[in-house]
Amino acid sequence: MLEGPFADRLPSREQRVRELASDVLNAAYLRGDYMLSSGVRSNYFFDKYLFETKPGILRRVASFLAELVPDDTERIAGPELGGVPLATALSLETGLPFVIVKRQPRDHGPSPTVEGELYPGESVVLVEDVLTTGSSAVTAATRLRASEAIVKKVIAVIDREEGASLRLASAGLESEALYLLSELRTP
Amino acid sequence: MLEGPFADRLPSREQRVRELASDVLNAAYLRGDYMLSSGVRSNYFFDKYLFETKPGILRRVASFLAELVPDDTERIAGPELGGVPLATALSLETGLPFVIVKRQPRDHGPSPTVEGELYPGESVVLVEDVLTTGSSAVTAATRLRASEAIVKKVIAVIDREEGASLRLASAGLESEALYLLSELRTP
Repeated sequence: MLEGPFADRLPSREQRVRELASDVLNAAYLRGDYMLSSGVRSNYFFDKYLFETKPGILRRVASFLAELVPDDTERIAGPELGGVPLATALSLETGLPFVIVKRQPRDHGPSPTVEGELYPGESVVLVEDVLTTGSSAVTAATRLRASEAIVKKVIAVIDREEGASLRLASAGLESEALYLLSELRTP
Repeated sequence: MLEGPFADRLPSREQRVRELASDVLNAAYLRGDYMLSSGVRSNYFFDKYLFETKPGILRRVASFLAELVPDDTERIAGPELGGVPLATALSLETGLPFVIVKRQPRDHGPSPTVEGELYPGESVVLVEDVLTTGSSAVTAATRLRASEAIVKKVIAVIDREEGASLRLASAGLESEALYLLSELRTP
């Protein structure tokens, strides 16, 4: 607990979380005319790479994500590609090793769908950039479980509230996000 | 400069570099019977992900790689996928932002081959895990130069000494690696 004449000038945890929300949004929320991967046109595009590639933002994101990692976690997992900078930063923040869950199995070498070490029975937390329907997180968790890892929780930077938490719960996965997209857009 | 009775017990920079070499090798050099992506059988496989996913190793690798980044560098670039944990860790170490150079252009969104911000005229250092012939580094540099970035240098963790430095020099790229594979295997 900090005391003394300057203690009340230090930003509170809540202020720092709000400030980070504003920085993430300013970095990554693009207004314009975009064609999304679903084929739908949109007047905005949330480019997660724009906040993940800025170390001043990534470091703070990793620090707050670390609070969502349960104590008994043995390994972080990040799905290719957007989850990789987050898993790397969270690994450096927590000291836990990580794995990368591939989009496509590789055609040579020992481990086809997961890069890095993973042991049967290990307790793994999956870290995602943005949760939408949750289906890609479920796919990644299924690949980790195929290696006999125990995956109980998915943590994310942003939950777009488009059904991910229900979809994940039905796959036996708790989920927790730093921000809901709605609260990010109306700070 | 440290002084006092314990100063001579602290490992020197050279000792720390050698110790890291041994840790990288123990983590990532696998003996066995492997089919390489070239179709050639090999009695070993160097799995770069096995050292990149261990935070205690990655942090030290990033710290030594940072010494190879020229002072006027404005941005780090990491080619997908093996360069991404390195670029992330190096970005967090140096405070410089980074970009990811994609293997395949993405089919939606604003930036097809480079993820993250990149401005014309920016001075970029490309970070690679392992340099073999250098051709993938040249491809990545070409993509960065297509965005009018200035790429002068490629830094790497390991140079397998299979022609990369000449190949890179012919593309106008200086290269520097923490380790030559030969010195890594005979510490």
